[in-house]
Amino acid sequence: MSGSVPAMRDLLRVHTDGVTPVDLAAVDPRSTPGLPDRRVTGDDQKGWARAQVAAIGAELGRQQEMLFASAKVDPAQGRRLLLVLQAMDCGGKDGTIRRVAGAMDPLGLHIRSFGTPTFEERNHHFLWRIRKALPAPGYVGVFNRSHYEDVLIARVESLVSEQIWRGRYDEINEFEQELAEAGVTMVKVMLHISAEEQLERLRKRLDDPRKHWKYHPSDVDSRARWDDYQAAYADALARCATPEPWYLVPADRKWYRDWAVARLLAETFADLRLSYPPADFDIERERRRLDAGSATPAGVR
Amino acid sequence: MSGSVPAMRDLLRVHTDGVTPVDLAAVDPRSTPGLPDRRVTGDDQKGWARAQVAAIGAELGRQQEMLFASAKVDPAQGRRLLLVLQAMDCGGKDGTIRRVAGAMDPLGLHIRSFGTPTFEERNHHFLWRIRKALPAPGYVGVFNRSHYEDVLIARVESLVSEQIWRGRYDEINEFEQELAEAGVTMVKVMLHISAEEQLERLRKRLDDPRKHWKYHPSDVDSRARWDDYQAAYADALARCATPEPWYLVPADRKWYRDWAVARLLAETFADLRLSYPPADFDIERERRRLDAGSATPAGVR
Repeated sequence: MSGSVPAMRDLLRVHTDGVTPVDLAAVDPRSTPGLPDRRVTGDDQKGWARAQVAAIGAELGRQQEMLFASAKVDPAQGRRLLLVLQAMDCGGKDGTIRRVAGAMDPLGLHIRSFGTPTFEERNHHFLWRIRKALPAPGYVGVFNRSHYEDVLIARVESLVSEQIWRGRYDEINEFEQELAEAGVTMVKVMLHISAEEQLERLRKRLDDPRKHWKYHPSDVDSRARWDDYQAAYADALARCATPEPWYLVPADRKWYRDWAVARLLAETFADLRLSYPPADFDIERERRRLDAGSATPAGVR
Repeated sequence: MSGSVPAMRDLLRVHTDGVTPVDLAAVDPRSTPGLPDRRVTGDDQKGWARAQVAAIGAELGRQQEMLFASAKVDPAQGRRLLLVLQAMDCGGKDGTIRRVAGAMDPLGLHIRSFGTPTFEERNHHFLWRIRKALPAPGYVGVFNRSHYEDVLIARVESLVSEQIWRGRYDEINEFEQELAEAGVTMVKVMLHISAEEQLERLRKRLDDPRKHWKYHPSDVDSRARWDDYQAAYADALARCATPEPWYLVPADRKWYRDWAVARLLAETFADLRLSYPPADFDIERERRRLDAGSATPAGVR
């Protein structure tokens, strides 16, 4: 992930002073930062990116196994990865999970989706349901939406007072600091789509009977508040950039989106410098025990 | 899944009178029931099976989406699938999950592993932790070990009295009947390996530093009780064959094992006769709403 290939984390990291709203309009949702220009050789960019995702996926699986193995031998270190995916409706969260997380071992994945809070959840602190959903050490967690909804939809739809949602930025920062100290490495990603792309995807959901279940009339109402949601994102990305930054992934092109998120995860894994844990038993002694008992059980089978 | 291809569920189903221990030794763990004999054409059986698993996996993903979609629109029907995997140590549960469940969408998977019960779990009824781990409607659940451990290791290692574990067969049957009535379709699979294959796999774990974390000295102790475990399985498979039967999958050959389990799932899905749910909204009205609002949000983006 080093050498001549640019680090995606550097290219996609959101820079912020912690106060000024992030200028989302400055990033073109159709752009493809970091993508090698293959057109000169006549290659198909989409095909290239899809093949790369498969290759990176294999590496993610290898890293995931080392993470899992390390935690099994020494759970106290608490190390785990947590991908947080946020996006406007139709932003591609589900597709990213299917293609990127889907490249890893499902046994080591911990995926949680956060929808409209239940009655019980509404009667707890907004982080209550998030804490319950955290991955255990050794796992790669994925949050399909997250606690950020509590400063996004909660703000735009006035589900709580302004005083309350404004106070949540600090609460989120403290919470994420606490997670970092517990061994959680968060990768916070906003999938950035354009209003035009959202319109096209919503139309496709109406046109395809296999996609009707993904459509809800309230999607149109949310879309009417596009600017309000973008403003809420602009503040959230600015105010909650510690201890881990946000990454803004242009997401109008699905193949770029998947490639970029896979790269972000691979670079994060590489930083963890994982390895397979050493045996916590005497290997030679175990070989002798195995040999000694090899004929014992039901030799006929 | 019909026509000239034999139904794997018929080939692999465990037949039992509900009392007589199942004769596990009668099934060769290296056999490959139902596998078309490709050798006559010079094809490589392993390569063929691996390609088939990919193709079946795509179909499983499609079925899984219809299951998920149906439950989203009508959760009250409660429909869900639950693959229960049991095996001796090194039997290939993890590999089966990686390759077969891994072909599906991770968002719709609900995988749970059952290890040594915690202090809290030991102080509850043995089905307490199982009930907590059930998949929600719409999900494909996978149990990596299950409540069957409570009539297997619990019996062999005398963790409870004989009176208690003998009573559990009925409790399990009642529990599974209750699940069936709640919409859960269970696919109960024992991955059937030979003692020789287990020995080889344990040796490989000792030889490969990347696999040391999978090895535990207690594996040799369990191996010494091979016959006791086989006897416990023989009873469990006989006594807990309702409402769903057990499938005994020869598992010395990993590629056959994966193919067979994928086929069992595909046949079970086909029986559910799933379809995409119809829209629960007025499609034309939504098209008009979308068109009317299409220019509204931030036209410049």
